[in-house]
Amino acid sequence: MTTVAVDAGGADAGPREVAAGAIDAARQGINVKLFGSAEEIGPVGEGIEVIDAPVSIAKVADPVAAVREQPDASIVQAARSVASGEADALVSGGSTGAVLAAGVLHIRRQRGVHRPALAILVPIPGAPVLLLDVGASSESRPERLVQHAHIGAAFSEVVLGIARPRVALLSNGEEASRGTPEVIAAHQILSDGTGIDFVGNVEGLGIATGEADVVVTDGFTGNVALKLMEGVSSAVIGAVRAAAASDARAAAGALLMKPALSGLRDQLDPEQHGGAYLLGLRSVVIVPHGRFGRRGIAKAIELAASASDADVAGRTHSALEAAGALRSSK
Amino acid sequence: MTTVAVDAGGADAGPREVAAGAIDAARQGINVKLFGSAEEIGPVGEGIEVIDAPVSIAKVADPVAAVREQPDASIVQAARSVASGEADALVSGGSTGAVLAAGVLHIRRQRGVHRPALAILVPIPGAPVLLLDVGASSESRPERLVQHAHIGAAFSEVVLGIARPRVALLSNGEEASRGTPEVIAAHQILSDGTGIDFVGNVEGLGIATGEADVVVTDGFTGNVALKLMEGVSSAVIGAVRAAAASDARAAAGALLMKPALSGLRDQLDPEQHGGAYLLGLRSVVIVPHGRFGRRGIAKAIELAASASDADVAGRTHSALEAAGALRSSK
Repeated sequence: MTTVAVDAGGADAGPREVAAGAIDAARQGINVKLFGSAEEIGPVGEGIEVIDAPVSIAKVADPVAAVREQPDASIVQAARSVASGEADALVSGGSTGAVLAAGVLHIRRQRGVHRPALAILVPIPGAPVLLLDVGASSESRPERLVQHAHIGAAFSEVVLGIARPRVALLSNGEEASRGTPEVIAAHQILSDGTGIDFVGNVEGLGIATGEADVVVTDGFTGNVALKLMEGVSSAVIGAVRAAAASDARAAAGALLMKPALSGLRDQLDPEQHGGAYLLGLRSVVIVPHGRFGRRGIAKAIELAASASDADVAGRTHSALEAAGALRSSK
Repeated sequence: MTTVAVDAGGADAGPREVAAGAIDAARQGINVKLFGSAEEIGPVGEGIEVIDAPVSIAKVADPVAAVREQPDASIVQAARSVASGEADALVSGGSTGAVLAAGVLHIRRQRGVHRPALAILVPIPGAPVLLLDVGASSESRPERLVQHAHIGAAFSEVVLGIARPRVALLSNGEEASRGTPEVIAAHQILSDGTGIDFVGNVEGLGIATGEADVVVTDGFTGNVALKLMEGVSSAVIGAVRAAAASDARAAAGALLMKPALSGLRDQLDPEQHGGAYLLGLRSVVIVPHGRFGRRGIAKAIELAASASDADVAGRTHSALEAAGALRSSK
């Protein structure tokens, strides 16, 4: 049976809400090890083991230092339980910095991986596009972008079943000459042929129109982009809702449209998707939004369990190896 | 009467479509000087002077070199007519690089301005937020970001009538420690007090929720963000439309909602807004989307004329001067 280590110390909604999500996931037959303040977590049901870890470093200014200095922090204990094999995968909605630091230090990077990347299926209707990095690192060195292109392609093949994913770089123009110096250099390397189907640069618009299956960017731009997508989606949906409430005629229309629109609402709801994958570590790590509630946390735990069962980490690494996309020296 | 120089050589839809937009604008009482291939432009009506300029550099790889080497290019001739005072403002939907190069070389930067910025009111419902730079330059030096913060604040005061605009930096986290090294440095300078109401960092989500009146970023991130907003808006609107067409019940509902939704459609339509302002030059320069048609071009010309009548360039510069935000040396 698959066991998922869950850090209850990170989520905005507090340990009790994370526990509620864990309870829902346990009902699906997943074993959960829940790390956080036992007092705040309260009673849990079958399939959940609570490990009292009252120290949370989810909001500290320097998560790297905190991970080193506070071995009893909930995220550190959770990561170590994955490293030791007691758990198969990790879920933490704390700060990405803390998850990343604990992951790199304890679960460790896969051999030949420069730096993990946070990857997410973008919340745009009809566009199952994988965007990475959405916030693991603001670094944008060309060789990192290139490796992230490979990581995205491998993940897309393994998890999404896309035989030959089209990979693009996010830029401010489609021409090879557009972008930051790092994007231009990465474009050059990828154009020279690296075994992946590189389709060039896409602009922001191209993410929404599905011009590529995988879109690669640095973690600063990717994070801004992801949060912008969520913001624009909710603003537009909110405006449609406001229009629906503006008069009786529109309200009647909205009532008739409701069933047809419910699928769209689900598609745009980040909680439905469980969060982002932290790729490049030796085990599966899922990072739900800090603001997820019970439902999103449960989804994240289910996603972690099924990704672990499918050996996503190992298979992604094999695909990277086959593509010759791992750095040679340690 | 206000005269607007219009470059017909840039727009994707071709010179004839730009001419159609110019004809509409001329009917509003604006004088237009139209630079482009007279043959392709064809007949025009009253209020429009066609200057035959068949050379277009809108799609060249190196616009800066092209502006220097091809003095007869339509954008160069259009910019020079503004520089000489024959026209009051410039409109060009060609490549931003070519407009920027022609603007800097001929219309020239305002005294004390490092680099012009492309500013736009974001196409998000209910959020009249000014975002800059959306593509004039990928440069992100802290002092440029700081000056763009001042330029955005001054423009927001002068044009939008916001008494004390709240200015933010776009970043991947709200804390002062988040962002690229350049964003962190700019945050420090702005926090030290510079006479503007600096509200700190906003994330992508914050643009949509109106946490600031002016959001400052580098031209690479801003361009990606702008095009992403447009892409997400249309994808969501498209999905609502598809849902409306999915069955008879939803279609009936959509019909009832249509009047209430038309305002939203207009609000999200980039053509309604006429394009972006290139700020920091001695005259008003408006950059419509390359893909605008007749209606968007007409709006851009009207926007250029009214901004020129209101002396937006001069008043923005005075506001910058009053804020002590101009660099001292030339």
